[in-house]
Amino acid sequence: MPIYQSPVQDTLYLLNDVLGYPDHASLPGFADASPDVLEAILAEGAKLAENVMLPLNRVGDLEGCTRHDDGSVTTPKGFRAAYQQYREGGWMGLSTPAEYGGQGLPYTIHAAVGEYLSSTNMALMMYPGLTQGAIAAILVHGNEEQKQTFLPKMIDGAWTGTMNLTEPHCGTDLGLLRTRAVPNGDGTYRISGQKIFISAGDHDMSDNIIHLVLARIDGAPEGVKGISLFIVPKFRLDANGNPGAANGVSCGSLEEKMGIHGNATCVMNYDEAEGTLLGAENGGLKAMFVMMNEARLGVGLQGLSMSEIAYQNAVAYARERLQGRSLSGPKNPQGKADPIIVHPDIRRALMTMRAFNEAGRALVLWTALNSDIAHRSDDEKARQAADDMLGLMTPVIKGVLTDKGFEHAVMAQQVFGGHGYIEEHGMSQFVRDARIAMIYEGANGIQALDLVGRKLAQNGGRAVQAFFKEVGEFCEQNRADEKLAPFTKGIKKGLNDLQAATMWLMQNAMAKPDNAGAASTDYLHLFGLVALGYMWGRMVKASQEKLAEGAADAAFHENKIVIARYFMERVMPETSAHLARISTGADTMMALPAEAF
Amino acid sequence: MPIYQSPVQDTLYLLNDVLGYPDHASLPGFADASPDVLEAILAEGAKLAENVMLPLNRVGDLEGCTRHDDGSVTTPKGFRAAYQQYREGGWMGLSTPAEYGGQGLPYTIHAAVGEYLSSTNMALMMYPGLTQGAIAAILVHGNEEQKQTFLPKMIDGAWTGTMNLTEPHCGTDLGLLRTRAVPNGDGTYRISGQKIFISAGDHDMSDNIIHLVLARIDGAPEGVKGISLFIVPKFRLDANGNPGAANGVSCGSLEEKMGIHGNATCVMNYDEAEGTLLGAENGGLKAMFVMMNEARLGVGLQGLSMSEIAYQNAVAYARERLQGRSLSGPKNPQGKADPIIVHPDIRRALMTMRAFNEAGRALVLWTALNSDIAHRSDDEKARQAADDMLGLMTPVIKGVLTDKGFEHAVMAQQVFGGHGYIEEHGMSQFVRDARIAMIYEGANGIQALDLVGRKLAQNGGRAVQAFFKEVGEFCEQNRADEKLAPFTKGIKKGLNDLQAATMWLMQNAMAKPDNAGAASTDYLHLFGLVALGYMWGRMVKASQEKLAEGAADAAFHENKIVIARYFMERVMPETSAHLARISTGADTMMALPAEAF
Repeated sequence: MPIYQSPVQDTLYLLNDVLGYPDHASLPGFADASPDVLEAILAEGAKLAENVMLPLNRVGDLEGCTRHDDGSVTTPKGFRAAYQQYREGGWMGLSTPAEYGGQGLPYTIHAAVGEYLSSTNMALMMYPGLTQGAIAAILVHGNEEQKQTFLPKMIDGAWTGTMNLTEPHCGTDLGLLRTRAVPNGDGTYRISGQKIFISAGDHDMSDNIIHLVLARIDGAPEGVKGISLFIVPKFRLDANGNPGAANGVSCGSLEEKMGIHGNATCVMNYDEAEGTLLGAENGGLKAMFVMMNEARLGVGLQGLSMSEIAYQNAVAYARERLQGRSLSGPKNPQGKADPIIVHPDIRRALMTMRAFNEAGRALVLWTALNSDIAHRSDDEKARQAADDMLGLMTPVIKGVLTDKGFEHAVMAQQVFGGHGYIEEHGMSQFVRDARIAMIYEGANGIQALDLVGRKLAQNGGRAVQAFFKEVGEFCEQNRADEKLAPFTKGIKKGLNDLQAATMWLMQNAMAKPDNAGAASTDYLHLFGLVALGYMWGRMVKASQEKLAEGAADAAFHENKIVIARYFMERVMPETSAHLARISTGADTMMALPAEAF
Repeated sequence: MPIYQSPVQDTLYLLNDVLGYPDHASLPGFADASPDVLEAILAEGAKLAENVMLPLNRVGDLEGCTRHDDGSVTTPKGFRAAYQQYREGGWMGLSTPAEYGGQGLPYTIHAAVGEYLSSTNMALMMYPGLTQGAIAAILVHGNEEQKQTFLPKMIDGAWTGTMNLTEPHCGTDLGLLRTRAVPNGDGTYRISGQKIFISAGDHDMSDNIIHLVLARIDGAPEGVKGISLFIVPKFRLDANGNPGAANGVSCGSLEEKMGIHGNATCVMNYDEAEGTLLGAENGGLKAMFVMMNEARLGVGLQGLSMSEIAYQNAVAYARERLQGRSLSGPKNPQGKADPIIVHPDIRRALMTMRAFNEAGRALVLWTALNSDIAHRSDDEKARQAADDMLGLMTPVIKGVLTDKGFEHAVMAQQVFGGHGYIEEHGMSQFVRDARIAMIYEGANGIQALDLVGRKLAQNGGRAVQAFFKEVGEFCEQNRADEKLAPFTKGIKKGLNDLQAATMWLMQNAMAKPDNAGAASTDYLHLFGLVALGYMWGRMVKASQEKLAEGAADAAFHENKIVIARYFMERVMPETSAHLARISTGADTMMALPAEAF
């Protein structure tokens, strides 16, 4: 069985030493999560991940979900009980408002623990994950009655939630959707249509399932301007607000997928199901984006999670597996062979994964902190700046962390050689599970377009300029420090490439939007490299300071600096290739007629 | 069901117009495969692939193989009959010597058709594929009795073959192997031990299975110097050379794998199985390399095959799926949306795959031609030069084509969005099947080490110098041609990076071999880019000539030039990043103690 140890020490280092978590004690909820409490919560989350979630991960993969003839769905053995432990631990409401039964703690902590839980059981964690997206949407767009009706039960975990967007003929292009909503005249609607790829669409974990469903009210405008969002519970609520009669919604079938077998991916059939409007009529897209943005960060976290657990298992295997001799002389002379961790090409894989994981974790936590500031600060300027950064980093985290998370799951599998291809070692599952994160909640090509097409230009480029300024100033302020200079140099080179690419887009994409599309994926990854490089810069600075202070855990900080060097030497050079590709524009790629493919 | 059309036109173009196949008519077997005959054979192979292999591909994935209580194994429904068609078509012996019942045609044709067959059913094609490796080993190392006994039946396909190398504790490091061979005193041996990951180890397709087994004769030296190769038939032969009593070998279990479910991957238990020595006592490694080299080219071809069929299906989906509008205005104004092939980021994926597939096919066929020259020419110098190039390109083809083949299967799956993650569309199977090619027959890290550690230095660097000279001269001779100059410039830049990397290795890896290991994977891919870039150079030159001659199929050639341009603009820039990484050496990557991971 795969092993896993929650990187609590690293999370604490990032929050306390690098990202200035303690400086935000005045934000609502932060005082309740002082560094001591933070540590205790992380330790509890780690236990849940390691003792409850991990042992069920392969069970979920092997057993999958089952749809019964009556349309009901059961989850793999043990999932229900594990979810109950999650629920009883109060994890669902960790960072939701106390007003509806949550604990109101920082979202940052939710994200930190979310990494451990996703690493150990991504499929299981999708059930509460989708619920959180639904909670967020109801919090922002629900009327008070809806909030009182649904939030306490969902935050308690008694009820779970889903997002119903995709239809057979439309995923990305939601303007095409056909699910209909007909007003009943009493404020409720009858929803009819078919939704596909609905994660956690039906299951046996909760007493009710609150579906958030995009549909078109009869007579609404064409396209995305005519889409509304509805709350459609699996069981209609009785007079006391308890689940009563079945609503007109059922799971028509389960999809056979490459991975995340433990999550029920449902075709959902709506047949005059009763629902209420969430948010404004025809304002569905906006309401949906609340849960979508939340979900995108969660999916980016899944990418990191898979990369981390795959890395840990590759390390364990590389330390144990004896094969061949070190090129620089035997390292295990009394044995018949050396452990494969002595081989540089194995190191290359391990270092690549680790350099990414540690910077990826920093980027997620930095962004989560920005999310807390954006939602909780009473300083409007700080709120706006944090919200800008959150919006800018959302597609980067979703796109880059999932692309790389998958790549690293594959890399870790490769360390196992033939044993990695055999299901019993669990490495194949990480690869198969990680694969979906590149696709759902907006395929990564869509994230890239969101970045170049929306986020860059928003508010006159305010967010991106702020990011460039912050990274540029970091380099400028630290380049005189000879211990930091080798790192600021690498980051600055990356930033220069990114700024050149941005300039190229400004000059070439306005008149010819295909140039933006042609650049988008490379731009996304170029942006990701600079953001991750910047995180390494901040970690090196923090660790150098700790070392200068004579920190007890000197080795921890010295190792950080080595990994940072690896990132600069082996990962950052990619920025030039991205810039070169971006600068060639769209002409060649669009030159062939569609028939010529 | 996935679609597939064999790229016969492209194969013919490469052989006839680009690689000079017709110039080799004087080689044995080539006269029998004049361009007309060649075309007819390719057409037959295409039919077999499209009509017989393709419909069984998903069947094999879903059904897998079954081991019965008596240890016997049955293949998925239809596999046996399809194999019979393959056999009756004479495909097994297409390029093996007429002396033992083969047709003696060029190996180049075998490779060309092999691509189509692997694309359409990789798992099924492994049964004959492993047989061919065994045939090659017996041809080179068998004594006349062994040849007469085994080859006609194997070339006929009545008997199949396997390679038994790996044991639970050793894969790459064969020096550790423990399977024992005890002489019976009559020239036969009793073989005992356990082998794992034995593809096609047992099945119901053939009357006998000829296992080639690496084992250690009692008293043999330690390590790889004490390994011998044995022929161990599943059924011992009776006095007439027909399968008789069962030998002491059986399939202990089947592995549950990520993909290639249609192929039986067996744990094979040898319990005093009777076998005869193939080749010299303790000369097993050398004998094994004959089949290994053959197999490595075959596995590289699998990488290309998966990339090609995945590409074709991504194209079909991208043409059909309506979603969103072109950034440059509606392309399907009467429809509700445009086909996604209008989006630059989708084009990027398609062009990347295609630019690789067409150059990869050229590289395989060029190398196959070199293999034919190396084995059939009566000009010793030509033979040596071709053999040098064959040896040099073997790890490049195996490593690069399988890494990229997998990457492209993933890329094609991404074009399908959520539908790619659902098994019914077949894209997941391509990804899962393609994954193994990076691992077996020497994991790609081993290919990289073979290139930097063995092939570069062999014969004083003769092979690599010849390659540099050939590519350099191509650039030099064509740079004055303004239609070719943009391409030779890109190739030359790549070649310069590759030569700089080679120089860096010469200066830094002798004294410190870890520098070679640290560079190896990047060097492999850098080499691959230059080799593929060179193939594009040759294709552009050929197509420019065809266009100048006023060829009827002008569009075909014009498209080639567009794809070549894409390769130069978007793929070749990667060479600089590889060089930058290589030049940083091993220090950082080896800096951490193993415990620090």
